[in-house]
Amino acid sequence: MKPFEKTERTTLKRLPARGVYDRKLVSSILDEGLICHVGFAVAGRPFVIPTGYARVDDQLFIHGSQASRMLRTLKGGVDVCLTVTLLDGLVLARSAFHHSMNYRSVLVFGRATAVDEPAEKVAALVAFSEHVIPGRWNDVREPTDQELKATTVLVLPLEEVSAKVRIGPPLDDEEDYELPIWAGVIPLQLAAQAPIPDPRMEVTIEPPRYATAYKRQK
Amino acid sequence: MKPFEKTERTTLKRLPARGVYDRKLVSSILDEGLICHVGFAVAGRPFVIPTGYARVDDQLFIHGSQASRMLRTLKGGVDVCLTVTLLDGLVLARSAFHHSMNYRSVLVFGRATAVDEPAEKVAALVAFSEHVIPGRWNDVREPTDQELKATTVLVLPLEEVSAKVRIGPPLDDEEDYELPIWAGVIPLQLAAQAPIPDPRMEVTIEPPRYATAYKRQK
Repeated sequence: MKPFEKTERTTLKRLPARGVYDRKLVSSILDEGLICHVGFAVAGRPFVIPTGYARVDDQLFIHGSQASRMLRTLKGGVDVCLTVTLLDGLVLARSAFHHSMNYRSVLVFGRATAVDEPAEKVAALVAFSEHVIPGRWNDVREPTDQELKATTVLVLPLEEVSAKVRIGPPLDDEEDYELPIWAGVIPLQLAAQAPIPDPRMEVTIEPPRYATAYKRQK
Repeated sequence: MKPFEKTERTTLKRLPARGVYDRKLVSSILDEGLICHVGFAVAGRPFVIPTGYARVDDQLFIHGSQASRMLRTLKGGVDVCLTVTLLDGLVLARSAFHHSMNYRSVLVFGRATAVDEPAEKVAALVAFSEHVIPGRWNDVREPTDQELKATTVLVLPLEEVSAKVRIGPPLDDEEDYELPIWAGVIPLQLAAQAPIPDPRMEVTIEPPRYATAYKRQK
């Protein structure tokens, strides 16, 4: 697959070695994440709103209520920066200065457009559901026409994209390596606990495997 | 403590019940989070960059390299929206439409200014370190004057702030509650794994307790 082309916005000014444009890596980060932070400006003033998303090929979908201020603003064709960040660990160096975090992040720049065709909208909602909980869509009551109308789905093409990644141990100044200070990485992971049944379930229904064995990392 | 005052930017247009302005709740979200997403516009085009932060009283600090494009832009006094999001769970309803996520998020609006006085800068770096790994600062080699000069510290006052929270079980349409579909919540948590020692530690140093027992949630 061809890597993403660098643009002015996606070219890292500092630590260019951490910048990556590889499509497979970008996809793997987007597919592991659950929420993105969507940035847009209204009259020059920025807003950053967390929301869910799903990737299908080289498109990213977000959705929500028709009444959402964010979605109505984005639908108007304003510039957007959508960021997904996975926090992988805390990096403990010998010096305060070289402490860091391990992470993988993706920035997507562009303009979103509305998905209006009902079949395409449903396909995006299926993708969204499968992205968050693979297998869930098969079990649920599907959207009615009215629910579909009340839902806004937007698509953002994956065209102007960059990823930034830090992995591995701390990097200390050479003379600090002999200091008697523990150094290393505390790995972090988004972990699922045992599912909590809705108190309003009237009959006993066994929790599905996608809930009891939920795992984000591949 | 007085709640934050609502402003045009912090007043939720939809689901106002989810909007909260309580200082204790805002502090607890900011203190549990590890990264924020900082949004700002350059020539009207938005950028959203993940970075660490620390709260001290009603101030939020961010820091990084003097060469950072983001910090240099923010230092110029542009409007910023800084968002911290904690993802607490996946909410599985009986209908696709009512699926949701449990989360706690905080939006901070304002303008950042530089912290230039060396003692104040060090205090901010201590706060930053204690925010991420309580106890770590005591063990590390402290910053040199040169390192301090190479570090930009910015402060953003907690003045225009709102939080948004979703907790609890799914909320289905009344007629859907009798459907034989498992419903409930899959709780999610940022969990630490066993620390990985830096392969360059030449003598055996026991990992400190703040690394072996690292826990984010209070």
